[in-house]
Amino acid sequence: MTAAAQGTPRRAGRPPRGVLSRERITSAAVAQIAAEGYEGLTMSALARRLRVAPSAVYNHASSKQEVLRWVQDHVMTMVDFSAFATEPWDEAVRRWAWSYREVFARHAPLVPVIAVMPVTDAAETLRMYEEVTRGFLAAGWPEERVVPAIVALESFIYGSALDVSAPSNIFDSGALGPEFPVFTSAVRSAAGEGAGDSAEGAGNAADVAFSTGLEALITGLKRQLTE
Amino acid sequence: MTAAAQGTPRRAGRPPRGVLSRERITSAAVAQIAAEGYEGLTMSALARRLRVAPSAVYNHASSKQEVLRWVQDHVMTMVDFSAFATEPWDEAVRRWAWSYREVFARHAPLVPVIAVMPVTDAAETLRMYEEVTRGFLAAGWPEERVVPAIVALESFIYGSALDVSAPSNIFDSGALGPEFPVFTSAVRSAAGEGAGDSAEGAGNAADVAFSTGLEALITGLKRQLTE
Repeated sequence: MTAAAQGTPRRAGRPPRGVLSRERITSAAVAQIAAEGYEGLTMSALARRLRVAPSAVYNHASSKQEVLRWVQDHVMTMVDFSAFATEPWDEAVRRWAWSYREVFARHAPLVPVIAVMPVTDAAETLRMYEEVTRGFLAAGWPEERVVPAIVALESFIYGSALDVSAPSNIFDSGALGPEFPVFTSAVRSAAGEGAGDSAEGAGNAADVAFSTGLEALITGLKRQLTE
Repeated sequence: MTAAAQGTPRRAGRPPRGVLSRERITSAAVAQIAAEGYEGLTMSALARRLRVAPSAVYNHASSKQEVLRWVQDHVMTMVDFSAFATEPWDEAVRRWAWSYREVFARHAPLVPVIAVMPVTDAAETLRMYEEVTRGFLAAGWPEERVVPAIVALESFIYGSALDVSAPSNIFDSGALGPEFPVFTSAVRSAAGEGAGDSAEGAGNAADVAFSTGLEALITGLKRQLTE
């Protein structure tokens, strides 16, 4: 039971600060970006959200860039890349990609930020790339082709993570339907395949598109390897 | 020569308003999103940028949603989908995808917005989807599989458009290089393939990754068709 619930009078002013830490600053930064986008993340906005003075934030993080690196590392630790150590290449890519998309679908406002963020000094992020690269090399990929293939997969994953939050009626042509009959019919036909006019339907539609693209990428990348 | 340059005293207050139009409002909205992100686009911010009263904007656009539809339509008219009427499916997809990525690379802040925006009542956007769908059907795609394949390609295109603005040193592991030697070496090896430590190098790296993924998608989607 909290002090407030026990009837102890609440002290006026700010709530107790708690101990500032990398973890607390990172969580506050994720929440701030979710609420106001990347542009809304400033050291002073972060300090307000944490109810501390900006100087207190600066005691831990030297810059917004450092906070962003923490955010990147924090999110990347949730991506499961363990299959690269145990599974054949196709299956490892498949599991990694589904996990990666799932994590970023839950953090969609971070997609445009992390997609262009240097990995420099981001240990957890680098750990992922190290293991993924090992998996590609073990599967016989020539070293110079690994990074472009990873970037291609990531581009697809980031775009697909955005698609997860698209509304289920995104392709509803509305009053213009009769003017664009071929597309309108194709949308209806795809919806019959499991994506209805519901939140679940939209989730299914995103999953069907992701699976279509991911399997095509895996097949196509494998083919490039044998050419 | 302007009135000011001729020494005519500048009238106090706002500059002449000009005639407000869908085109002017759309350009202002694109500029506003580029400057302050999607969150920064409000009808009142738009009015300030256009130097008119918010009510003047509302005389043309009923809501922020309508302005966004104009932005979407405006950007989509720049995407070249003409090859679907004349070229084989592979080549049509290739030309459309490169054009689409190029347009959105120049409008990266719009990616997260347009990726989840309904096409309802957006005539130019629907025109593109109508022609792309016709191209897929003409190439023998079953109707219910066209939309998931288009969404998969678009997800890859949107993610790749973000990647174009990534800094050239995005994969520089920095002081942590020795801890992650396999990835560090793969990055160096890929850079040797045309992507140096320059703006041009970064552009090349993005092009190599885009080409790798797009060709894999085209190959893989074609294979799904014959399965």
